[in-house]
Amino acid sequence: MMAGSTEESPILAVDLGGTKIVTALISSRGEIISREYNPTLAEEGADAVINRILTTVNSLVSKALSSSYSIATIGIAAAGAIDSEKGLVTDSPNLPGWHNIPLKDMVEKATGIRTFIMNDASAAALGEHIFGAGRGMNNLIYLTVSTGIGGGIIINGRLYSGPSGSAGEIGHTTIDINGPRCSCGNIGCLEMLASGKAVAREAQRLIAQGAKTAIIELAEGDLQNITAQTVATAAQKGDTLALTIVSKAANYLGVGMVNLVNIFNPEMIIVGGGMAKMGNMLLDGARKVVTERAFQMPAQLVRIVPSQLGDNAGVLGAVAFAKELRRPL
Amino acid sequence: MMAGSTEESPILAVDLGGTKIVTALISSRGEIISREYNPTLAEEGADAVINRILTTVNSLVSKALSSSYSIATIGIAAAGAIDSEKGLVTDSPNLPGWHNIPLKDMVEKATGIRTFIMNDASAAALGEHIFGAGRGMNNLIYLTVSTGIGGGIIINGRLYSGPSGSAGEIGHTTIDINGPRCSCGNIGCLEMLASGKAVAREAQRLIAQGAKTAIIELAEGDLQNITAQTVATAAQKGDTLALTIVSKAANYLGVGMVNLVNIFNPEMIIVGGGMAKMGNMLLDGARKVVTERAFQMPAQLVRIVPSQLGDNAGVLGAVAFAKELRRPL
Repeated sequence: MMAGSTEESPILAVDLGGTKIVTALISSRGEIISREYNPTLAEEGADAVINRILTTVNSLVSKALSSSYSIATIGIAAAGAIDSEKGLVTDSPNLPGWHNIPLKDMVEKATGIRTFIMNDASAAALGEHIFGAGRGMNNLIYLTVSTGIGGGIIINGRLYSGPSGSAGEIGHTTIDINGPRCSCGNIGCLEMLASGKAVAREAQRLIAQGAKTAIIELAEGDLQNITAQTVATAAQKGDTLALTIVSKAANYLGVGMVNLVNIFNPEMIIVGGGMAKMGNMLLDGARKVVTERAFQMPAQLVRIVPSQLGDNAGVLGAVAFAKELRRPL
Repeated sequence: MMAGSTEESPILAVDLGGTKIVTALISSRGEIISREYNPTLAEEGADAVINRILTTVNSLVSKALSSSYSIATIGIAAAGAIDSEKGLVTDSPNLPGWHNIPLKDMVEKATGIRTFIMNDASAAALGEHIFGAGRGMNNLIYLTVSTGIGGGIIINGRLYSGPSGSAGEIGHTTIDINGPRCSCGNIGCLEMLASGKAVAREAQRLIAQGAKTAIIELAEGDLQNITAQTVATAAQKGDTLALTIVSKAANYLGVGMVNLVNIFNPEMIIVGGGMAKMGNMLLDGARKVVTERAFQMPAQLVRIVPSQLGDNAGVLGAVAFAKELRRPL
């Protein structure tokens, strides 16, 4: 049985990532009523993760009911290739074992509540467009720069997902034709050069070659402990090697943005994800490359800004998506 | 005085390129009634070229009148950065001396006929979408691969030009971060590697280094005579060096297409411009790279095809644009 839908009732939103699951009850105006974080523990396999999602969702639905909220819609933002029409997680590099999982149907069956599913970077783009940094911007690109690099595209005020729903894979565009092979099968991808993974790998490589830096102390002497966060912390303390690595990543990110500026002539590029927490330490370098290399007219127009919604961009985007879709045509 | 506008009256379309000006009288259904080619002689400067356009347009208007056609609209597709709203040729690398030329106003003043102006690659994209290879495709990318590389984007069945009207500069995206500097100021642009100019330059370079090839005979012994066409002719005759150069350009073009496929998930990529005349000799190599490196879902969807309209894509696009804009809102 599907519960009745009203424009006003809150939406239960889930952001399913490789490391954590954010679940939130959100009003249709984007106010977060309650929220919880759970670890994904993706390595336990698809069934375990699905059970964790269903348990969390059902517990939130019960809690909402006891506070006399009636949830009419569930919106899910999930990492990976998503078939929104069929409600499938087609494939997800950061969720081992997920292939053609009918997550929409599973959640609908478990809850009796109408459910929508979309890609997480697309959700974050939509979230920032409707509720965050991109309000009032009709043409913008959202880049999530974390372990990997994902993208979402807003064109003429609407999310653009492409006919197969796979548009926006900006992290998997070649910017170095002689660069390293990416796990996606492509070569010299932006993700291989400017992501958190790339920053950590570069630090490990240089330290293994004998570079002197505070990074290794922050990582308690173990190369394997080094993450982009370790490098960022060292850079904030003025560590020369860390600053060089961040500046190199900023340069690569800038090259990716030049491509976006020349292709899309967007009003705004919004940068989210873990690396965005570096703020201007990362973004100023990227802005400089855009000013120097992109076409003048679009370079003067575009504003390159950090995400306003941070970790909530995904769930808020899922809310915007669910609101849009549940509206009668 | 503006002439009256009807949905049915033919449109006079002009395609202003760096080397030639195509002028055509075209029915609103896209049938070419008459057409003429004139050399641009861009090196004579903006005034001389503008006079040439006005003379040609006025002569075609008179001829049309004497055949009792009443022209209600003129559509212009022009090379370079175009401000369609203000009717300006803002800047045009292949038209020396053209800066903020109010071409729309000039033509309206000289003819008394309502005029529209747009970028030539955008026009070609729209032409192929409405009248050519891309009919019925709602999401497609048009690439003109000639001396340079330009692009046009159709999203959700409509031309996407971006808020400054400069979107689609796909030729000026970095695919080789360590590559040569482009005249646009960017580095390792697709245009520097896969355009007609790049093919000719590569042949000249290898021959200067002593490579044996039929290309130099076709160019009558003069390196400066070598064009992409010379290389194509030699390749068609089985010349090894020419085949290697074409295959390398196809590879670069394929890398550019992988980026488009992963970003846009388009139904179709249409390749026009002089280099497209090489047909599958060029396109098969590019298709192979897309199959090998792009994400599987969008790679399986996209069709990579040559332009159907050839030299007429620009004028037919200008017709489609003028038809769309003259329609009452």
